[in-house]
Amino acid sequence: MQFQLTSDFIENIAQHIAKKEGNTLREVLQDFHFADIAELLDQLKIDQATYLIQQLESDLTSEALMELDDDVREKILERLSPKEIAAELEELDTDDAADIIAELDEKIQQKVIDKIEDQEHLADIVELLNYDEDTAGALMAKELVQVKETWTVAGCVREMRRQAENVTRVHSIYVTNKEGKLTGRLSLKDLLTAEAKTKISDVFIPKVDYVTVHTENEEVARIMQKYDLEAIPVVDDQGILMGRITIDDIVDFIKDEAEKDYQMAAGISQDVEADDSIVDLTKARLPWLVLGLLGGLGSVYIMRGFDEALATHVELFFFTPLIAAMAGNVGVQSSAIIVQGLANDNVKGSLFKRLLKEVGLALINGVALGVLVILFGALTQMDQQVAFTIAISMLLVIIVAALVGTFVPIILDKKGIDPAIATGPFITTSNDIFGIFLFFFIAKLILNF
Amino acid sequence: MQFQLTSDFIENIAQHIAKKEGNTLREVLQDFHFADIAELLDQLKIDQATYLIQQLESDLTSEALMELDDDVREKILERLSPKEIAAELEELDTDDAADIIAELDEKIQQKVIDKIEDQEHLADIVELLNYDEDTAGALMAKELVQVKETWTVAGCVREMRRQAENVTRVHSIYVTNKEGKLTGRLSLKDLLTAEAKTKISDVFIPKVDYVTVHTENEEVARIMQKYDLEAIPVVDDQGILMGRITIDDIVDFIKDEAEKDYQMAAGISQDVEADDSIVDLTKARLPWLVLGLLGGLGSVYIMRGFDEALATHVELFFFTPLIAAMAGNVGVQSSAIIVQGLANDNVKGSLFKRLLKEVGLALINGVALGVLVILFGALTQMDQQVAFTIAISMLLVIIVAALVGTFVPIILDKKGIDPAIATGPFITTSNDIFGIFLFFFIAKLILNF
Repeated sequence: MQFQLTSDFIENIAQHIAKKEGNTLREVLQDFHFADIAELLDQLKIDQATYLIQQLESDLTSEALMELDDDVREKILERLSPKEIAAELEELDTDDAADIIAELDEKIQQKVIDKIEDQEHLADIVELLNYDEDTAGALMAKELVQVKETWTVAGCVREMRRQAENVTRVHSIYVTNKEGKLTGRLSLKDLLTAEAKTKISDVFIPKVDYVTVHTENEEVARIMQKYDLEAIPVVDDQGILMGRITIDDIVDFIKDEAEKDYQMAAGISQDVEADDSIVDLTKARLPWLVLGLLGGLGSVYIMRGFDEALATHVELFFFTPLIAAMAGNVGVQSSAIIVQGLANDNVKGSLFKRLLKEVGLALINGVALGVLVILFGALTQMDQQVAFTIAISMLLVIIVAALVGTFVPIILDKKGIDPAIATGPFITTSNDIFGIFLFFFIAKLILNF
Repeated sequence: MQFQLTSDFIENIAQHIAKKEGNTLREVLQDFHFADIAELLDQLKIDQATYLIQQLESDLTSEALMELDDDVREKILERLSPKEIAAELEELDTDDAADIIAELDEKIQQKVIDKIEDQEHLADIVELLNYDEDTAGALMAKELVQVKETWTVAGCVREMRRQAENVTRVHSIYVTNKEGKLTGRLSLKDLLTAEAKTKISDVFIPKVDYVTVHTENEEVARIMQKYDLEAIPVVDDQGILMGRITIDDIVDFIKDEAEKDYQMAAGISQDVEADDSIVDLTKARLPWLVLGLLGGLGSVYIMRGFDEALATHVELFFFTPLIAAMAGNVGVQSSAIIVQGLANDNVKGSLFKRLLKEVGLALINGVALGVLVILFGALTQMDQQVAFTIAISMLLVIIVAALVGTFVPIILDKKGIDPAIATGPFITTSNDIFGIFLFFFIAKLILNF
C-alpha cells in the first residue's frame, strides 16, 4: 500500500525538472500524499526541490514543506519569492503558518505578511506570533469548531458544516457562552443522537480539560498524555476560547524531548541529525569532547601526585582506566534512570530512602565486581593485598559515583535546570576524576606508600 | 483546573479504607478522572489500592488500572478474584482487555475468561489474544465504526448511533463492501454535508491507508507518524476489516522506544524505572558493569604488555584514562546520532560518503583536542616529543572510535539486529580497549621504546 521512493523515480522526476516540464510534474504527482512529496523533495537538490514546489499546487506543497527538516525548508524558503511563500501559508493551518513566518529572516517576514490575501487567516497568524515560544499560545491553532450554549442541535449542525470547511479534523466541538468563554464540550455521539430542536445547553458536557495560552509546552504534553486527550482547548486569562492543540503537535514534542535527553547523555549539545553539516556536528560535539579532555588532563595531574606509588605498586596505574570506566558507567546508569523518572514525573518518595536504595544497589554491584577483580588477581598472580585494595577502593568509587549520578540531576531539577545536561559527559568526566583520586587516596591509606 | 494529589487527601482516603467506608469512598471519588484515580492508587499500599478498586465502579477503575505501572497492576490483579477481574474487563476496550489477560498467570486466565458475560466482547478479546505480540493484530482494538458502501447517508447515521455506543472516540468511519473488505473511509464532514438519501458509495473516499494484522508495531508507528494519522484500520490477509489502531497506543510505543534507546545507551538492559526493586535494577545494570569490568581488565593486560615503557615514558600511563575517555565519548556520540537516525529512517546516502564525513569530523575534533594536549604538555613542562606522540595517537584513536561508533550500528541494523544495543557500554568498552592498545602501539612506533 505504501509508496516506495525508488532511485529510478527520483531520476525520472529530476529529468522532468531539468527540462522544465511543469505540466508533466503536476500530472505525475497530483495524487501523491504530501508526506511522499516531502520524501521526494528531501532527495532532490535544493534548486530542484524549489522548482518542484513552484510548479505543484500549494495545497500539496505547503503540507510537504512542514514535513521537511528545518534546515532544508530554510534553504528552499530563501529561494521562493514573498508571494510564493504567502501562497503556501494561505493553505496551512494557522499554527504551521505562524511557525514558518517565525523561521523567516526578519526582513522577509513583513513582505510575506503583506502578500497574504485572506485577512481573517492573517489576523489569526499574527496573533499566534505574539505568544512566547514554548507556550500553548504559540503551539495552538486557531482552527476549531465552536458552538454557543444557546443554539439548537439543528443550528449547531448547520454552523458546524460551515466551520468544518476550515478544520482538517474535527476532534471535539467546544461550547462557549455569550462572551466566548469556554464552558464545555460536545461529543459527536451526543450530537448524532439528540433531537434537532434540543438546546445545546441541555446536551453538552460542562466538564472540559483546558490549558491557558501561557501554559508551557511541557505541561501541555503532560496533561494530554495523562488524560489521554487528542486535542485540548486553549483559553486566555479571561477564559475566552482562543484555539486548540492537537495530539500530533505533542507527539513531535514528546519524541523530540526523549531524543534530546538521549543526545545530551551522549554528549551532543544541539539537536543534530546524521545528515547535518560537519560544522553543525562539530559545534554540537566538540565542546563536550573538550570537557572530557579537561577531565582526562585532571586525572593526569592526580596520577602525577601519586607517582611515588610507581616504585612499589605499579599495578595501580594499570587499573586506572578500569576505575574510571566503572565510575563513569555507574554514574551514567544512575543518572539515566533519574533523568527519565524526572521527565515522566515518577520520582517520588523521600530523598533519604532513595539514598539508601542507591547505596544498597551500589553495594551489591560493587561487591560482585570486586569479587571478579580479586579472582582476576589470583589468576594473574597479582599481589593479593594489591588486588584486595583495588577491589575495596573500586567498591567505594562505585558508591560515590552512584550517588553523584543520582543526586546531581535531582538537585538541578529542584533548581529549575534541565537535569538532562547533567548526564553523559558531565557526570562521566567528574566521576572519572573523582573516581581516580578516591582510588589512589584509599589505596595509599591501605597500602601505606 | 488540574487535580493536585495532596498528602492530606491520600491520608484521608487511607483512613476511609482502614475503616472500610466503601460508601464514603464511592461518594468522594465518583467524579474523579480515571487518570487521577490511577495516581491515587499508585500512592496507596497494594492492599489499600485493591480494596479501593473493589469498592469503586468498574467503569472508573478499569481505565485507572490501565494507567498503572505493569508491576503495580500485576500485584493488584493477584489480589482480585476472577469475577472481579472479569468485571473490569467488561468495561475496557478489547485491546486493553486482551493486554490484561495476557499479563495474567496462565492458571487464572481461563477462570477470568469464563466469568466474562458479554459473549461478543469475549469473542473479540480471544481473537486479539491469538495475534503475535508486537504486531498490529495484537495492538488493534475491535471497536470501530463501520458502514457498508450500499447504505444511504441516513441509514449510515442510524447505524453509527448504534455502533458509536461501543466506541469511545470516533476517529474515522470505515467503509466496507459486501464481503467486509475495506474499500475506503468516510469523513464526518462529508456525512454532515450530504443529503440523507445519498448512497455512501457516492460520497466515500476510496483511498485509505491501512496495515495488516501482521504488520510490526514499529512499521505501524512509522506509517502513522509519516502520514499524520490519528487512527489506522487493520485488515487481514483477505483485506477484511478487522480492527483499528489509534494514535494514543502509538504515542506510548514511540515514547517507550525512544526511552529504551536511551537506557540501552546508558547500559541498562531492561525497561526499568527509578521506583523498581533493587533486584530488578541490579539485573538490568550489573551485566553491563561486568562487561565494562572485563574491558577494564583487558586494558590492564594491554598495559602489562607495554610495561617496558614504564622506565622511559611513564607519562603515557598517566594519559591512559584520558585516551580511554576520548575513545569512549567519541564512539558514543557517533553511535547516538546513527542510532537515532536509523530509528527515524533518515540515514541516507552512500556508506562511503558517510565514512568520509566521519573521518572529516574526527580529524577536526582530533586536531583541536591534540592542540590542547600539546599546550598542556608545554605548560606542565612535559617532554615535547612525548606530548606530540600523545596528541598524534589520540587523533588516530578518535578516528577509529568514530568509525566503530558509526559502522557497528549500521552493520547491526543491516543484519536485522536492534542497533541500540551497540551503543553505550558495548561501544565504550570496545573503544576503551582498542583505544588503549592503539595508543601504546603508536607511541611505541614513534618513541621507539
